Formats: sequence, C-alpha cells, structure tokens
Amino acid sequence: MRAARTVELSGPEGLRIEDVPSPVPGPDEIRVKVKATALNRADLLQTMGLYPAPPGVPADIPGLEYSGEVVQVGARVTRWKTGDRVMGLVGGGAWAEELTTHEREALAVPAGLSFSDAAAIPEAFTTAWDALVLQGRMTVGSQVLIHAVTSGVGTAAIQLCKAFGAHAIGTGRNEKKLERAKSLGLPHALLVQGPPFADEVKSASGGGVDLVLDLVGGDWVPETLDAMKPGGTLMLVGLVAGASADVPLRTVLGKRLRIQGTTLRARSLEEKISVAREFEKRVAPLFSSGQLKPVIDALLPMTGLQGALARLASNDTFGKLVLTW
Amino acid sequence: MRAARTVELSGPEGLRIEDVPSPVPGPDEIRVKVKATALNRADLLQTMGLYPAPPGVPADIPGLEYSGEVVQVGARVTRWKTGDRVMGLVGGGAWAEELTTHEREALAVPAGLSFSDAAAIPEAFTTAWDALVLQGRMTVGSQVLIHAVTSGVGTAAIQLCKAFGAHAIGTGRNEKKLERAKSLGLPHALLVQGPPFADEVKSASGGGVDLVLDLVGGDWVPETLDAMKPGGTLMLVGLVAGASADVPLRTVLGKRLRIQGTTLRARSLEEKISVAREFEKRVAPLFSSGQLKPVIDALLPMTGLQGALARLASNDTFGKLVLTW
Repeated sequence: MRAARTVELSGPEGLRIEDVPSPVPGPDEIRVKVKATALNRADLLQTMGLYPAPPGVPADIPGLEYSGEVVQVGARVTRWKTGDRVMGLVGGGAWAEELTTHEREALAVPAGLSFSDAAAIPEAFTTAWDALVLQGRMTVGSQVLIHAVTSGVGTAAIQLCKAFGAHAIGTGRNEKKLERAKSLGLPHALLVQGPPFADEVKSASGGGVDLVLDLVGGDWVPETLDAMKPGGTLMLVGLVAGASADVPLRTVLGKRLRIQGTTLRARSLEEKISVAREFEKRVAPLFSSGQLKPVIDALLPMTGLQGALARLASNDTFGKLVLTW
Repeated sequence: MRAARTVELSGPEGLRIEDVPSPVPGPDEIRVKVKATALNRADLLQTMGLYPAPPGVPADIPGLEYSGEVVQVGARVTRWKTGDRVMGLVGGGAWAEELTTHEREALAVPAGLSFSDAAAIPEAFTTAWDALVLQGRMTVGSQVLIHAVTSGVGTAAIQLCKAFGAHAIGTGRNEKKLERAKSLGLPHALLVQGPPFADEVKSASGGGVDLVLDLVGGDWVPETLDAMKPGGTLMLVGLVAGASADVPLRTVLGKRLRIQGTTLRARSLEEKISVAREFEKRVAPLFSSGQLKPVIDALLPMTGLQGALARLASNDTFGKLVLTW
C-alpha cells in the first residue's frame, strides 16, 4: 500500500508518499481501506519531530483520523464485517491506504454521509464534544466562550453548543471567517487580535461565561479567566498563542475556577474506546438528522498533502482539510 | 456582648474588643454562645481590608470558625435545642461572645472533645477534606503532595490522608516543624525552601503524585505541575508564595492536568450546608474514634488576640491558634 511517511523530521517537506507493507490486524482489530483522512495542527508538530507518535502506532506515518471501508476483521471481531463503512480516531497511521484499529474504537459512518464528510468529523467533533460536554459539563443554558472559533474544533463547537442548547460566544482574528462562523449558528462573534477582550465577553454573556473551549492559550489566558463566572471551567485544548501564561492565581482561587488540560491522543485504549462509544450513541445520530454538519475547507488528493499542510499552517482555512486517495 | 471589631483596616492593631449588640437569629437560625474560636491566615488579610466579609455577615467582626453552646433557636429550627454543643464555619463574626448561624450549617461537637478542641476543627479539616476528598477525589492508594504541611490545613490533611488510606508527601520550610508533622503520621517530609523539588517528590511517590493540596502557589506552581502524574489534580487553596505563576501550559495540556481553585467562604448557603452535612456524616465520627485529632499550637485568651495574630503572621505556629473568652 501507499502511505505518506516522514523520511525526515523537517516539516511537511520531509514527507514522501512511498510503498510500505499493509498492516496486519490483531484478533480484536479491523483492517480499513482508507477512503479519506484529514489534517490537524498536531500533524505539523509531528512532521517536525515535536509530537512523536505514542507506542503501538506507526512512528513514521502521521494521520489522526480516517473514514473508509472494512476489508479484514480479526478473529474475535464481532462489531464489523467486510464492506462496513467506518470512521474514527487513531494515534497515527491514517495517512496511508490502509490502517488497523481496535474494533471498538471505530464508529459507523452516519447514514447519509459520504466518506469525505465522515473524515472531517472524528478529531474536530470528538475533541469539542469531549471537552464541552463530557469534561466541561456543558448543558442547556451554559454560556460558552470558544477561542479560535473558525478552526476545525471551533466550528464543531459552534454546532454542538447550538444542538445542546448552550449559548456560544466565539473569538477569531479574521472578519470574513467570523461571518462564516455566524452562518453556522454562532450568535456572538468577536473580532479579537489578542487581549483585552474580557469586557466584550462579559457583555455578550450577561456577566461572564461558565465554560471556555480554549485552543489559543498563551497570553490570552489571564483575560479569559477574567471573563469567567465563579465556578467556571477553562478547557485547554490548544496553544496557538503560546505554551506558557502568567496566571492570576488569586482569580483562580477567588472564583473557584477550574483549568483542565485535555488531549485525546495520550489516552489509554479503554479511555479512547469509552469516548468513541459515547460519541457513537449521543453525537453521531445528530449528523444523520442534519443538526451537525462537518465543515470542510477543501477536499484535496493525497498527492497534494504538502500543499495542504502549508495551507493549514497559513491559518487561511475554515474548517477541515480533507484528503482522499 | 463583647466582640473583636476592626475599628481601622490597619492590620491586627486596628482591632478593639468592644461591647456590641447581640445578634438576633432568624427563623432557621440558632444563636450560639461562643466558647472558643480560632485564627486563619485570611483573618490577617481581612484586618487589612484585603478580604472583606461577604454580604449577610458582620462586616467589622472577623472570625471564621467557632465552638459553643446553643442559647436560642429560631421559630423553625428542628435540629437543635438550647444547651447543645455545636461547632462550625461562619462567613465572619466568630470573634464575638455570640453569633448566629443557619441551623444546618452547625455541626455537633464530636463526643469526647472539649470546646477548645472543637474550635480547631472546622476551617482546617473542612478545607482539607473538601479539597482532597470531595473535589480532589482522593481515595485509597492516592499519592498526595501537601505543600505547607505544618499549617493548620496541612496537619489536618496529613491525618485525612492516613485515615482515608492515601500516601502523603509533605513539604515545609522548617525542620523542627516537619519532625512534628511526621509524628502526626506523615510518611514523607521534604524540607524545601522553594523550587526545585519535583525530583524529590517523584522519588518519594514512585513517579509523581495524583493530587496536590497547594497552600503555597506562586513560583512553586511550575515545579508542582512537573511533580504530578498524568491526569492529576492541583487543588489551589492558598497563595503564601505569591498570587501569580508562570504556568507551563504545555505540561497542563500534555498531562491532562486539572488546576482547581477553591475557597469555602465565597460559596452559597446551600453549598456550605451541603459540605457541613457531609462532613458531619463522614468525618466528624473520626474525631470521636481518635483517628483524627485537632492540632492546637496554643490556647490563648481573646484579650491576647493581637499577639496571637502576630504569632500567626510570623509563621512560627504548628497547627491552630485557638482563642477562648
């Protein structure tokens, strides 16, 4: 099979599409013929050697999500048969024509969705839903601040807030992209290049937010904490503005705030399965009903991978970059 | 009645013992003749005007905990009769001969304890237990780091770790006080003047801690986060080392850490009642059985209040300063 391999850890230009052996599924695993995959910011780090693959996944083939068709099942597999349409997250190896995954980590492609649509779902929607709902306890009426709202995770979060009855306020640096975010159902879009923004957020939320989905970090954090209600939760998902912050601990203590770091890839198999199973039950049906829609910036061939990564790095995307074989 | 009033917000020297009107209990409240009260670091801030009393409590009479005898019950009170021995937390007003409190916020003094013993319990043990168990999810086998382990909250935490089957590692700046902490059942005492200390904590805990009770904050925070296992929780309770910290967000994200600020006084009545009722059920019996013991640095008359506050500020105390009328 063909796969995009990191032959040098020098960034996207160190990737080559090469022939490699097909992976062999274990007894609880399925082998999937990948129809589409999608890009994530973490991929840029991985191609530079800054986000190495965890043990048990291909070290030299990036790619964190996929959609495709089951072509082989392990001896103990009960959930799938060959020909089934699946999608999901993997710790790596999705930039290949085939991959293997535990049968309980794979999800059925929601009825009515194409493989390209499905490949844009797993990372963005699982990250946003896990952070907002499972960990952030978002509920009807929650006031939610979404930083980098025009990103893949951000555009998923907008739709999840709407579907779950929460009120979203989103920040972004690009006016045109914020207009598109509004068309996805974002009630409050704030054009923000950096701090200060707390007063605007307080005004849009009637006094402060209960929950923050933070893909930005860095020097935005003190303002973000200022914009939160007592008892609020900041879910830290990304660090595009920087990897450290001067945190006002008195605010954290006095308002009893929670700062919670989260990442999907570092989790154990059983945690990943648990999230996948919950997602299949509680979120996947919302795609078939039309309440949630994958947001695709562009659909490109795998041979255009390097250009696609350059586009991702440029911050010009709105939603996901999906690649097909 | 007599009470210690802040006639000037100039620190402990602005306090005067004066005659003031007795408080009148509402229909759900009890009036308590205070037998003993105790000091907290927050009192020092309050006497300087830096930690004002919340609405609904005397603005000019500090004091956050008490033991005493019920002398009057409101019309709807069902839990108490005059003569009952009670203890508890209040938002303020405990440095007086009498106070009023909601009947459901008061706890029975555990059998076998004196009023002086009882006054040393509420703030230290409720803070430590709420942070460790209710919010921090401490359980049998948890590895727990306690900063400022020789403080009132710290010495309570040592005993709670032992009683709940958790393994405690405590830091302190004073060798003699750490020896006393060991005699309370602290298995690992680390003499630490400041960072670095992560390697010592990792070594004492077999690779890192699950939970931190942090009364220090400031520039200790980055080292503390480094000493934590993936998925760990830092409960931020105090800030004696400083009110801000340069937080390594990549560590928070990568290890999926939780930083949770907590304070008791800012909570709503229903939250305070809930904690008091749980404490009465799950922790108070451990005092009667001897598994937990209030730690009293000194027992002093209320007329010695200013000197006692100076002693608290000097950091020479081990356990609680208890004052009696």
